[in-house]
Amino acid sequence: MAKKKPLILVTNDDGITAPGIRMLIEVMNTLGDVCVVAPDSPQSAMGHAITINDTLYCDKVRVLEDQTHQEYSCSGTPVDCVKLAVNEILKRKPDLCVSGINHGSNSSINVIYSGTMSAAVEAGTLGIPSIGFSLLDYSMDADFEPARSFVKSIATQCLKKGLPTGVVLNVNIPKLPKNEIKGIKVCRQANAHWEEQFDKRVNPLGREYYWLTGEFVNEDKGEDTDEWALHNGYISVVPVQFDLTAHHAIKDINTWDLS
Amino acid sequence: MAKKKPLILVTNDDGITAPGIRMLIEVMNTLGDVCVVAPDSPQSAMGHAITINDTLYCDKVRVLEDQTHQEYSCSGTPVDCVKLAVNEILKRKPDLCVSGINHGSNSSINVIYSGTMSAAVEAGTLGIPSIGFSLLDYSMDADFEPARSFVKSIATQCLKKGLPTGVVLNVNIPKLPKNEIKGIKVCRQANAHWEEQFDKRVNPLGREYYWLTGEFVNEDKGEDTDEWALHNGYISVVPVQFDLTAHHAIKDINTWDLS
Repeated sequence: MAKKKPLILVTNDDGITAPGIRMLIEVMNTLGDVCVVAPDSPQSAMGHAITINDTLYCDKVRVLEDQTHQEYSCSGTPVDCVKLAVNEILKRKPDLCVSGINHGSNSSINVIYSGTMSAAVEAGTLGIPSIGFSLLDYSMDADFEPARSFVKSIATQCLKKGLPTGVVLNVNIPKLPKNEIKGIKVCRQANAHWEEQFDKRVNPLGREYYWLTGEFVNEDKGEDTDEWALHNGYISVVPVQFDLTAHHAIKDINTWDLS
Repeated sequence: MAKKKPLILVTNDDGITAPGIRMLIEVMNTLGDVCVVAPDSPQSAMGHAITINDTLYCDKVRVLEDQTHQEYSCSGTPVDCVKLAVNEILKRKPDLCVSGINHGSNSSINVIYSGTMSAAVEAGTLGIPSIGFSLLDYSMDADFEPARSFVKSIATQCLKKGLPTGVVLNVNIPKLPKNEIKGIKVCRQANAHWEEQFDKRVNPLGREYYWLTGEFVNEDKGEDTDEWALHNGYISVVPVQFDLTAHHAIKDINTWDLS
């Protein structure tokens, strides 16, 4: 009996026409049956936002002339795309969900702002093995070619081995030529944060407004972090969980006087 | 020497005029110097979204006639509000950030969609002890009175004892009269998810669209979860972390063939 090809859901947060998702679709088409459900416009930094007070459009589209898989363009967030795909579009639960390849880093604390990773996490909550891929190059001209073989090998292993319950993968790829990428490291999330500097301006009507401009601050010197790996030429793979409970803190809070 | 009063930042995701934040402001005014920076409109289910491709307005407002503290109404998301408050508005780092009181539950997996909790988490990344409060009543007429003394005691303990590094609190309050609330339980996040049913409609121009309508599915039978506590008349307090690393999974992924 021929083994059924795996069903792979592809999404992202840069929008359905971004170069990063195009590369991801190409690679996934070598591994299984692909269905794309992705935002119709850029949705970066949308975190785990969902659309509850507005309507959602989701239309079948043909992006490539020779396209054999199905693609849907959705007016919602990355998380909306996953919900629509799994509950409305796909006839069965996908064997894998991949999100990206994001134009820009989602390492360290960026994971909590990332639409790319939130889509992967949403699929994880539905019991679907899931991976978010990001390249450390924000440009729309970014070169995704060096990432190709690594994306394929990580997705292949994930299809073969599955993932522990409640875990999805956050994969970040340094901006390097392929022969300078030293390999893949499984890491922990570096302990870092953003310090914002708001650019204050005045609009033509005289009202003040701001642009958010931040600086990434990493004070984590550990050599087992994603930031260390990326700065040292490695692809970082962080297993991410959506049980946010700080189990170690329960005992401490239980000493509080809350009568 | 008189001890300096604590500085308390108050925000939410239901918008600056919501009854829930009004109660929170009242309680915090009994504990310290209050500054409110909250969204100018409802921002529920915005997760950890931030505004990077648009401008932000943030205007000083007077909501109450007899208001002695400062309030700012912001066009952005709950996380934007915290970033603006800490980096642009406040003269020093607040001693406490409280978010809510949300109209509706943020227990279990809802924590990842919640604008209320994302604001608290953002403050946590900046090293500020932080608590998100939610009442299990979505109504704008919800009765927040039974929550008052509990909100005060939890915030008081947090000011007194601080929180472990990298931890914020997710507090949910059952919809019960005060004499039926049995107490406070420190819990873990229940392992649950949403199953969506999309309500498909056709717009006046003949184009199909969807409304997201979901069902909360909790298969976690544990008696140490927030869901159990809430269903049994307790206020749930879950310590939440933003290091999402699934440390237990690192060993497993390290067995993968990623050459």
